[in-house]
This record gives sequence, C-alpha cells and structure tokens, in this order.
Amino acid sequence: MTTQKHRLALVTDNNDHYRKLLESKQLPDLTFTSQLDEATILLAAPPKLATKLDEANKVEWVQSTYAGIDALLGESLRKDYKLTNVKGIFGQQISEYVLGYSIGYFRHFDLYKQQQKKRDWQPHSYQSMIGKRMVIFGTGAIGSHLANTVKALGIVPVGINRTGIPPRQSAFAETYHINEAAKALESADIIVNTLPNTPTSDGLFDERLFSACRHALFFNVGRGQTVDGNALLQALDRGHLVHAFLDVFIDEPISQECPYWSNPNVTVTPHIAAISFPEQVVDIFAENYLRWRDGFQLQNVIDFERGY
Amino acid sequence: MTTQKHRLALVTDNNDHYRKLLESKQLPDLTFTSQLDEATILLAAPPKLATKLDEANKVEWVQSTYAGIDALLGESLRKDYKLTNVKGIFGQQISEYVLGYSIGYFRHFDLYKQQQKKRDWQPHSYQSMIGKRMVIFGTGAIGSHLANTVKALGIVPVGINRTGIPPRQSAFAETYHINEAAKALESADIIVNTLPNTPTSDGLFDERLFSACRHALFFNVGRGQTVDGNALLQALDRGHLVHAFLDVFIDEPISQECPYWSNPNVTVTPHIAAISFPEQVVDIFAENYLRWRDGFQLQNVIDFERGY
Repeated sequence: MTTQKHRLALVTDNNDHYRKLLESKQLPDLTFTSQLDEATILLAAPPKLATKLDEANKVEWVQSTYAGIDALLGESLRKDYKLTNVKGIFGQQISEYVLGYSIGYFRHFDLYKQQQKKRDWQPHSYQSMIGKRMVIFGTGAIGSHLANTVKALGIVPVGINRTGIPPRQSAFAETYHINEAAKALESADIIVNTLPNTPTSDGLFDERLFSACRHALFFNVGRGQTVDGNALLQALDRGHLVHAFLDVFIDEPISQECPYWSNPNVTVTPHIAAISFPEQVVDIFAENYLRWRDGFQLQNVIDFERGY
Repeated sequence: MTTQKHRLALVTDNNDHYRKLLESKQLPDLTFTSQLDEATILLAAPPKLATKLDEANKVEWVQSTYAGIDALLGESLRKDYKLTNVKGIFGQQISEYVLGYSIGYFRHFDLYKQQQKKRDWQPHSYQSMIGKRMVIFGTGAIGSHLANTVKALGIVPVGINRTGIPPRQSAFAETYHINEAAKALESADIIVNTLPNTPTSDGLFDERLFSACRHALFFNVGRGQTVDGNALLQALDRGHLVHAFLDVFIDEPISQECPYWSNPNVTVTPHIAAISFPEQVVDIFAENYLRWRDGFQLQNVIDFERGY
C-alpha cells in the first residue's frame, strides 16, 4: 500500500485513456490505485460509480466526469463526501447540436436528401432563421452559451429560469420566471430544455405546458426526467410540436419498444449532444486537485440537497 | 399606351407576387406594363430575360432579382442599358446552409438517422467545430457575413481574394491572395466557394487546387462554372475531399445522368442555398427606383466588362 496521502482510483469507461492524460499532468503527491477501498479520491462516471460507492470506504472527494450527477443522488446512497461535477465544457457542443438540427429542419435538408435519391430537382421555399424565437429552459453556463451562439445567426434567445432575471452580460433578449413559461412558449419557434434533474424540473414539460406551444421544435438536451413522454407524443400528434429532438431519456438506452424510434416527428440520438472530452475533464480535475491538496475550496461542488 | 415616363415590366417566375408587393410601395411616376417593348425598366430574373432581351427595345435599366447576372453577359446580348443586381441579402442564408451541413457532417447526423431506423443506440465520438479552419473564396458581402457567423461557433475563417487584404472590420483570421490559395487549402477543414462567375474564377477549382486539400469538406454556393466537375469527382475518390455540398451547377437542373446524384459523398441541392426573397428584392428595387427617378446614381451597378 502506498504511503502517499492522496490516492486516486478511476471509475470510467475509459480508464486507460484517463490514466495516460493524468500521468502527463504530473500532479504532485498523487498516486493511482486500482483498489476502490484504498482510494481517497475518485474520478468517476456517476452511473458506473453508483453501484459500488460503498466499496470506496475511504473516499473523501469524487470528481464526476459528467455534468449530470443524479445517479449519485439516490436516497440509499452515501453522501458523506465532497462531490464535484464538470461545467462549462458543454455549451459549445449543445449549441452545435441545436443549431445543426434546427437549420436542417427549417432548410429542408431531409427532403433534399430524399429528392437526391430520386434524382428529383425540386426547390422548396423556406424562411431564414432570422427573428425565430428560441426559448431556452435554464440560463446557466449551457443556456447562456447557447443564447450567445444562436444570436449570431439572428435567432432571438429567450431565457426561462427560477428568478426571471437574466444572468449578467447574457445574450437573452427576454427572461421569464419558470411560472410564466407557458406565456413564453406561445411565441416559441424552438424550445430547448437544458435543465438538470431536480425535484423542480421533474415532469416539468407536461400536457399543460406543451399545450401552450404552437408548431414549435422541441429539444431535450437536459434530462429525460424533465419531460412527460406521453404528453410529448400527444403534443406532436396535436401539432403543438412539429418535431422533437431527444438526446436524453429516463432509461438509457431506450427499449426496442419505445415509440420514439418509429415516430417520424421524433429524432432520437444516443446521449451525444454533449459528451465529456477526457482532455477537458482532466483539465478540470487537475485544477480542482491542486485546490484540494492545498486546502482550498473545490470548484463545481454539488449541493446534495438541491441536486446541482 | 400610358404617358408615364417610367414603365415597368416584370420578367420573373413570380410576377403576381412581385406586382402586389410593388403596388403596396406606391412608387411615384411608375406604371406597370405587360408589353416588353413598352417598358423602360425591367425587374427580371436573368435567365428568363436573356432569351427575350431584344424585345425590350426601350429598356434603360434592368434590376436583376438575382445576385448572379452572368446569363446577361453572353457576347451576343445587348449591353446598352444599366444593369443592377441584388446584394447583401444572401449572407445569412448562405451561412445557414454552410453551418447546417457542416455541423451535420461532423456530428454524424446522417448516421444517427440510419441508426434510428434500425432502433440502434450507438454513440460515436466526434470533434467539436472549435478551431476548424474554414477557407472562404470571396471576401465580399457573402464571404464576410459567413466569416462573421462561423466565428461565433469557434470556427476560424480564412479569406481568399484577389488582393490578399481582408476587408475592413471583417472576422477573417487570415487572408490569402488567390495565387496563394493552395497554401491555405492544405490546412482547410471546410472550403466554401462564394465567387461570382468571372473569367478569373472560371474553372478555378481544378486538379491542381483540389490536390492541395486534405480530407476537406467542399461547398459550392457560388457558381457552377468555378469548379471542374471531373477534378472534383477525382478529389473525392482520392480523399482530398471527404464530401462535397453542391448547390450550383453549370447547367441547371442537372441531367438525370449526372454522376453527382448517386455519389454518396456528394450532396446535391437545387440552387437553394440562397434565394431572393421577393420582399427583399422589392425593397432594393424601390430604393434604386427613387434614385433613378431623381437622377441619382443606382446602387449595385454591374460592370459588363468585369462581370460583377
């Protein structure tokens, strides 16, 4: 057994790659261990760690490799350690996902692909993205980054949060309190959920909220739990929504029987709107580790009560 | 026959709509005529006008509804009138087209669509758009608008023009002289042709230029004549290009035998990357008409010698 004070174990799908990246950082006073019961620090993917958290009986700090840490919030799970997540690295990827699919929708990319197969030269009229209203649920790092990016394409970003107050220096043209969300949705062309999974967001998108929408695109890049699946399918049937782009689900992967797969107005992607690039995660871990070692406060600490 | 000094005839695919929009402008001293040989002014789509230009023997000014006026440059065609085109309204649409397809490519949208049909949940790794180099041929209104937009997504815009000097206040990170284009292409992730059809641009993208590329995406949203079709297909075969998005062609519509239709690495769209929205064209015409009536210089006058 090592005598170093800080012993790190990796609990990811990509341990070899993480180990290589971490070694190149040459972090002082840190050794690696493959024994969970020896580790004082874990770098871990929450769903993978959840099942073996009890083995890690010396752990003091867990750095999540994901933004979403709800797998570690279960009632039966220990919460006697510091938990930090990764933030600030997903805004770009989410922006690419939302913009790419939105443009493809409004500019008929699927239709042109079908026409090409039939050697059919047939232009279709369209509207540009200028002036379209994008209602973004969540005005944190991801929502603010998205607002900023889409504004460059002439899209009008509207924020929804729990205060009705926009974050400082944000690009949001308007910001509504979550209780006023239905009002904002009436004029939404595009709706984007970026909210984390919390008791407040659980089932937020229900029949009432969807019925305020008029022919909108709906993106879920936050958490599956935030959307009532039956209400979503009904909203598509009734035309409140014209298309749903779903990247997150309550159970992943979704089952073969899930009605989303075959619905022509649903695009399913396997939780790839934003992924943690290990290089970025290791940068965040390294900075936090130096704080931990020197006794300073960690960044991105999760409040187990609030859930984020 | 009307006694008004200014008589306008419409030569578009959309005369009824244009007439309605023009009437709502209530332009002074202007009447409409359906007789080409009575008209002093034409609002016209160049390919449509080219075949009947001789009929319009009283015409003094032609406002094109397109940016591309090369259909009116043929040697046998009269050039004894003022020709103006539309500018400044295409940058947004071109930006949407290029960004939408680029994101779709790098983020595997087609692959996820195929997987969804098979109910296959399979994430694939990807790189974000940050730091990708987009080499844009043409630093005029369209190229500059594109540079500005893609910069907001972290893409590095590089300009190519005939001076090597970037336009003022542009977003181009670097600008190369057209003679140095091959050098810029070596590090290009995305190449976009926005050039008009001129003697200089004719056949510009040939085997030599394409062979400088390394696994790049290629967009032609300028003119078909700028690209050597055989060289393009060869560049795709050899991997200099990984995909071509073609919106403009020497002959439109392309023939049923055209090899582009069935090439899996070519996306064909029917000249829709940017279209003239009649509302915008009519705004440009109305402003130019008031200048014409009052004896001031027209905007966007074409130099028949230079071809733009």
